[in-house]
Amino acid sequence: MKASFALALSAALLAASAPTIAADSPATPSAVVAQAPATAWRAIPADDLLVMRVEGGRRVVIQLAPGLSPGHVGNIVKLAKAHWWDGTSINRVQDNYVVQWGDATEKKPMPPGLSPTSPDDYALPLATRRLAVTPLPYPDPYAPSTGFVDGWPVAMDGSAAWLPHCYGYVGVGRNMSPDAGTGAELYAVIGQAPRQLDRNIAVVGRVIEGMEILSSLPRGTGELGFYTATEHKVPILTVRLASALPKAQQPRFEMMDTQSASFADYLRLRANRKDDFYDRPAGGVDLCNAPVPVRRAP
Amino acid sequence: MKASFALALSAALLAASAPTIAADSPATPSAVVAQAPATAWRAIPADDLLVMRVEGGRRVVIQLAPGLSPGHVGNIVKLAKAHWWDGTSINRVQDNYVVQWGDATEKKPMPPGLSPTSPDDYALPLATRRLAVTPLPYPDPYAPSTGFVDGWPVAMDGSAAWLPHCYGYVGVGRNMSPDAGTGAELYAVIGQAPRQLDRNIAVVGRVIEGMEILSSLPRGTGELGFYTATEHKVPILTVRLASALPKAQQPRFEMMDTQSASFADYLRLRANRKDDFYDRPAGGVDLCNAPVPVRRAP
Repeated sequence: MKASFALALSAALLAASAPTIAADSPATPSAVVAQAPATAWRAIPADDLLVMRVEGGRRVVIQLAPGLSPGHVGNIVKLAKAHWWDGTSINRVQDNYVVQWGDATEKKPMPPGLSPTSPDDYALPLATRRLAVTPLPYPDPYAPSTGFVDGWPVAMDGSAAWLPHCYGYVGVGRNMSPDAGTGAELYAVIGQAPRQLDRNIAVVGRVIEGMEILSSLPRGTGELGFYTATEHKVPILTVRLASALPKAQQPRFEMMDTQSASFADYLRLRANRKDDFYDRPAGGVDLCNAPVPVRRAP
Repeated sequence: MKASFALALSAALLAASAPTIAADSPATPSAVVAQAPATAWRAIPADDLLVMRVEGGRRVVIQLAPGLSPGHVGNIVKLAKAHWWDGTSINRVQDNYVVQWGDATEKKPMPPGLSPTSPDDYALPLATRRLAVTPLPYPDPYAPSTGFVDGWPVAMDGSAAWLPHCYGYVGVGRNMSPDAGTGAELYAVIGQAPRQLDRNIAVVGRVIEGMEILSSLPRGTGELGFYTATEHKVPILTVRLASALPKAQQPRFEMMDTQSASFADYLRLRANRKDDFYDRPAGGVDLCNAPVPVRRAP
């Protein structure tokens, strides 16, 4: 078993030593994921997948979180059904921060039926819904407690739970508060988790395929990383719910059940790396450094 | 004053509202940096700057940390003086992890005089040196305490201090432990801080200019993000200490004094955003989400 997070001198060298490693490989997070039984995986509904085709036909797939961000996700579903993003573009890439897309003209009319949003939508009151939380038992600089709910990381205080701004997570651009954004202007995080945005902006999902398409885009040289008039805005060809695509084109994904024994093993090993490459386990892991495993449906 | 971390709907819209913001702008981290007095800044010695020219002549500048990682930095200085990296390449780009460079052939002879390294070099024993630490008073999932020393973030336990794997930080590739790397194979972090690597690998510095050149490179499709035979390794033209360049070509940078009042203000505001854009201060900030301000010398 090759340690997928190893920083070996080169792939060639790693391959050369792989047989030895395979013989007595200690447990690693990637081994746990590879060996997790079918019962540890849950299908992601096609209604929760947003399929974005950008210039060149390259595909980015976003998993929406309707359970944790119902208001904004509801609007995003309406916008996708209205084909609203077709012909818009990626307009901003700020290093170690976000890639942002939407209507650069800011004049495209919204489809009918969008719901009003407010800052109250940034977190889910725990009084309204009983959440089955798998706790992450390590301290967090931004919240009293953290854990996982229904396949998603959450930060929590005594009264509410909210999605964190982790790498690859998708949020809703907005104007100055109390504007909370419609859901039409979106961004994905491409650097260190900007958790200061938690509860200041709506998080609605995460990129589960094609993240490297967004993260490797040229950075914009304008204010806040916006592309200038002479820089190339990346055309967005189409954005569709997976469930609206012809059956043969629907991507099918699964996420690890965050209440499974496999996920418990995975978390423990993410926090305590001690294997062929790691000598010194940290004894902890950041909420944004234990990404919930997602895979193509086998 | 424009809030440089705002996620406004667009630059145009932000610009339109800027006059209003300027009139009654509350304190922000970027405002503190912009207004810091000259006494809050310290020149970075030209001996601590590594200037890397890559394909197209684009410049990446790395600040070395000889005080915190003396063994590996000593070797890196020798390698730069021997022009060892000239003609090598960037060989690996793994999304949300690292960009790695060095000798792809693994056959280039080392220059004479490199010092042996060991895992003991990954942290600085506190017994050997009294450190003036500016504490970061928020919990960290990876270490008992954290703070800043001489312009650098550090994680600490009762007996040692070490540089963390933050975005843009540079570490030393190695083979399986107890190999600790010579310093010839280097990488820069391009995603969520992989703090599990702390004390498992040597951190030697940080990219202070040209980070976007590295972070926007195409991801490699080989194992661990290595470029395959058909992918383009990015040529490294030259790597020099700034002090070895002709005076007119020497880049000059300053970093904020981490014991200054300005830095204390900056930290407080990074942890407590409450301004035109932010409604809800987090009351904390991650060690890797409060980057020490660095600027071109005025």
